Amino acid sequence: MTTYIAPTLEMQFVLNELAGLDTVNTLPGFEEATPDLVDAVLEEAARLASEVLAPLNKIGDIEGSKLIDGNVVVPQGFADAYRAFVEGGWAGLSRNPEFDGQGLPGLVSTAVDEMWNAANLSFSLCPLLTSGAVEALEAHADEALKRIYLPKLVTGEWTGTMNLTEPQAGSDLSTVRTKAVPDGDHYRITGQKIYITWGDHELTENIVHLVLARLPDAPDGVKGISLFVVPKFLVNEDGTLGEHNDVHAVSLEHKLGVNASPTCVMSFGDEDGAVGYLLGEPNKGLACMFTMMNHARLGVGIQGVAIAERALQQAVEYARDRVQGSAPGKDGRVTIIHHPDVRRMLMLMRSQTEAMRAVAYLTAAALDQSHSAPDAAERARFQTRVDLLTPVVKAWSTEVAQEVTTLGVQVHGGMGYIEETGAAQFFRDGRIITIYEGTTGIQANDLVGRKIVRDGGQAMRDLLTDIETVESALDGAGEACAGIKGALSEGRAALARATDWLLETHPNDVHAAGSAAVNLLMLMGTVVGGWQMARAALAAHAKLESNEGDAKFYQSKLITARFYAEHVLPRSGSYLAAVLAGSESIMALDDEYF
Amino acid sequence: MTTYIAPTLEMQFVLNELAGLDTVNTLPGFEEATPDLVDAVLEEAARLASEVLAPLNKIGDIEGSKLIDGNVVVPQGFADAYRAFVEGGWAGLSRNPEFDGQGLPGLVSTAVDEMWNAANLSFSLCPLLTSGAVEALEAHADEALKRIYLPKLVTGEWTGTMNLTEPQAGSDLSTVRTKAVPDGDHYRITGQKIYITWGDHELTENIVHLVLARLPDAPDGVKGISLFVVPKFLVNEDGTLGEHNDVHAVSLEHKLGVNASPTCVMSFGDEDGAVGYLLGEPNKGLACMFTMMNHARLGVGIQGVAIAERALQQAVEYARDRVQGSAPGKDGRVTIIHHPDVRRMLMLMRSQTEAMRAVAYLTAAALDQSHSAPDAAERARFQTRVDLLTPVVKAWSTEVAQEVTTLGVQVHGGMGYIEETGAAQFFRDGRIITIYEGTTGIQANDLVGRKIVRDGGQAMRDLLTDIETVESALDGAGEACAGIKGALSEGRAALARATDWLLETHPNDVHAAGSAAVNLLMLMGTVVGGWQMARAALAAHAKLESNEGDAKFYQSKLITARFYAEHVLPRSGSYLAAVLAGSESIMALDDEYF
Repeated sequence: MTTYIAPTLEMQFVLNELAGLDTVNTLPGFEEATPDLVDAVLEEAARLASEVLAPLNKIGDIEGSKLIDGNVVVPQGFADAYRAFVEGGWAGLSRNPEFDGQGLPGLVSTAVDEMWNAANLSFSLCPLLTSGAVEALEAHADEALKRIYLPKLVTGEWTGTMNLTEPQAGSDLSTVRTKAVPDGDHYRITGQKIYITWGDHELTENIVHLVLARLPDAPDGVKGISLFVVPKFLVNEDGTLGEHNDVHAVSLEHKLGVNASPTCVMSFGDEDGAVGYLLGEPNKGLACMFTMMNHARLGVGIQGVAIAERALQQAVEYARDRVQGSAPGKDGRVTIIHHPDVRRMLMLMRSQTEAMRAVAYLTAAALDQSHSAPDAAERARFQTRVDLLTPVVKAWSTEVAQEVTTLGVQVHGGMGYIEETGAAQFFRDGRIITIYEGTTGIQANDLVGRKIVRDGGQAMRDLLTDIETVESALDGAGEACAGIKGALSEGRAALARATDWLLETHPNDVHAAGSAAVNLLMLMGTVVGGWQMARAALAAHAKLESNEGDAKFYQSKLITARFYAEHVLPRSGSYLAAVLAGSESIMALDDEYF
Repeated sequence: MTTYIAPTLEMQFVLNELAGLDTVNTLPGFEEATPDLVDAVLEEAARLASEVLAPLNKIGDIEGSKLIDGNVVVPQGFADAYRAFVEGGWAGLSRNPEFDGQGLPGLVSTAVDEMWNAANLSFSLCPLLTSGAVEALEAHADEALKRIYLPKLVTGEWTGTMNLTEPQAGSDLSTVRTKAVPDGDHYRITGQKIYITWGDHELTENIVHLVLARLPDAPDGVKGISLFVVPKFLVNEDGTLGEHNDVHAVSLEHKLGVNASPTCVMSFGDEDGAVGYLLGEPNKGLACMFTMMNHARLGVGIQGVAIAERALQQAVEYARDRVQGSAPGKDGRVTIIHHPDVRRMLMLMRSQTEAMRAVAYLTAAALDQSHSAPDAAERARFQTRVDLLTPVVKAWSTEVAQEVTTLGVQVHGGMGYIEETGAAQFFRDGRIITIYEGTTGIQANDLVGRKIVRDGGQAMRDLLTDIETVESALDGAGEACAGIKGALSEGRAALARATDWLLETHPNDVHAAGSAAVNLLMLMGTVVGGWQMARAALAAHAKLESNEGDAKFYQSKLITARFYAEHVLPRSGSYLAAVLAGSESIMALDDEYF
């Protein structure tokens, strides 16, 4: 009951028909990413995900990672799996060939990342964090640091971590207290960091910690934070490893889920101070960190898609198998997939998973464009789109994933509550994703503040125009497509109305943006998802018209798009109502009366 | 962080202003239930809940119940707590004085039950199941059985269980295989039952299992099921206990939550067959079981209110305590309760918890009326209302509780994912309540089939009329009340429209009712909750006008009602849209294409 089959057919459809792989692979450096090569990559990744990573998912949950004599011991099988992952070249799939990466588009590695996360969320957190470290080093490190650390991290021979949070400073980094004191060509780091994912382990011979800390003369607040590279083992000039640095995992958290992923309390400088190297400029650590965080936010959005897909597969398998009761129009006892309400749940799971996947891949393609399009104006245009969609991919996908994993439990009935079944693990594991890398509330504040208000709504208006273009196309594409136009139009109008309200109201009400933020973000996710489902329907209609490919697959696309339009898009109205309600009833209650 | 304070002020408000305690205590037998007595009962119960049961909640989660040498061993402290519970007379609070009950209205014990469940859901399952057994015995047993079993069960000296489910028969009881063979004045029972809550323990000297089984000549299907009383220890003529019956817990489930509540696989008749006594008539077991189930369904609805209240209290405490970031209009760093989005989450939790409580208590009062009103027509009228509302209290309250417990985790940020904090336990524990005692889908089918279609929508129309009456009253009760009228009217119109659609569509589409059921139920819960919030606002307005009581409390009622109208009632529109979408897109996908 806990198998995972990578949905390669569906992924190919999204890559080719919605995300524009055929455009991305015309970008300089991505020419090799032909559909054939991408298919081969997906097939290989699917094998590793299904055969190696997925079978470890439950073992990882049961055994968990443990801190034994100061070292983190991971569940059985994880070390071998990680070795296979590195040997397959998967760690650097979309990384710079200059540092031993494979140089494929981020779009392609996004699909592959979905597989790792669906197969084994705990495992996948390790490469996700490493990727973030690579991005920060690529963007901000000097050549010496790059030369030493990048090839090892890109290939996955070493892993990376992000050390932001301290006990007194969760999402608010202005109060970071960890200290960095100059000491010759390096710094000595002292302080404690919490919630450090894969902060210690013995999968690799070294671990590279990126650590936020303050220089002695640093200004208060976020403008006084610098970023440091702190290796677990010091690296000699010739690349060999020296002594153990003054950094240790001192305890692990007992969590609701992702038990195989060690969440460490890291102590820096219990003795002389951990040796660290400044990454980027002094006091500019937050900007460097944002490089990592933006990457990680898309990555966590993909986790939403992935855990939803996994929960869906498990629920479908159970619903096909479990005989229970009778169904209208069927003789005798039936499998529960014939019960309308079970189907309704499965369709909610399926249609929203498809919508999330399409939006996430689309954003990944835009990110590739923003880096690699030859024309600067094009790059800027795509960067604006990426900036607008990133908080939505992160927060909407992870929130919808909660709905999907809880439906996954529900489809199983009583069996869903029994840990043996597996559905409960997805429900528990997935619960973290609306929290880490910036909670839903933080993503929503980013969306309304930096991405909508700051440019006066221009990026949003451009998006709305793109949605309208699709609405027009729906009319001429058969009955099934025409049938979803109304709901998309209403959703788009609701999003436009909410945006206008925000722009009008926030100058006169300091609480307006924060009060409306999450509802506006969920409204936007719902509508953007509907936009992509409409594009999927158009593509499917065209394929059916031209008798291309698997007709059943394309018909199922039309059905899923219709379901989304009928059951999911109408939620736009209630999100809009909550936005328009403003801040009064949210702020009115006296604190002590809560 | 894991304290629980019973919300007695709020409970009194609901009992007195919304549920009509002043009418219930005019019913024959309930005259003693004066507001003063009820206040005293609530105060005593609050003490036991806060001081004894709540502190055991986390211990219970960590230790869990274990099967050791064939006996269930409960977590430390549970046996003493159960003794205190029995000695306080709490088990029989609303039970018949003829069998040593306290004879208070069910309305009062509903409020008290909320406390037990909020304090310790695992613990409370034991008396909940016992209550079900009492109801079945009271309604269907002959005098001899009543005399032997009822006093012991009413006082809680013995506990009761419900044995319905078998591995091949989850919600579908037609396939029950457990056998009952006549043997003198009793029967010999053989078979295996699963998911038996508190199926074994050593809290009491005996346990009374109610067991569904088939007589040798029984017809197939649900019309061949009989109900039996199967004591763990046989009871001698003089009431003393004899030998251990042939029934044993053979394993416990490893569950997502409610770990202290042993969920047993029970084996009957491994040797000679367990001795059982027929309860009610042969082959009428299902009807007897329904007596227990209806009671248990309201009880599980109360669990929704309870776990939501507990999650809310924990989230508020954290939000008041946790300093993080800055807030508009406040100097320096603030506690997170000042962040608009945290407040939005707390208000969603709070307003929906209040709405659920009001609907549940209202239904409990109607149940008292349906049993005890002097006039037969009145009893019937209230019974109809109880029948209509029971699936809503069960399913809507438990579904909304999922939203509340997950928001509770979210308010805590990263801390919410750490088990030590406690928020995750409510999230895990509460996940079962949409499943047991009939899943949300089963409740919804009951609502649309037996409660709406069967009487042609009459009971629903009567309810809609009652809601309209409240809408009219809102106009004349100040600005705050008038402001919530629009949302309630729209919600009520949506419910009326959905009902009409159901009545029109189901005769022509066998899948219509099942496809629309859950959305219609959630729509109804949302609107009925809004109706009660509107009544609360009216009552608060009247109190404020007459300068009675705690003005801050009543002002907070107005704010919460407004928030519910602005943020929750608009969901009616999306539920209605999903109802009106019908069955096509739900049923269209080929099974193999899921």
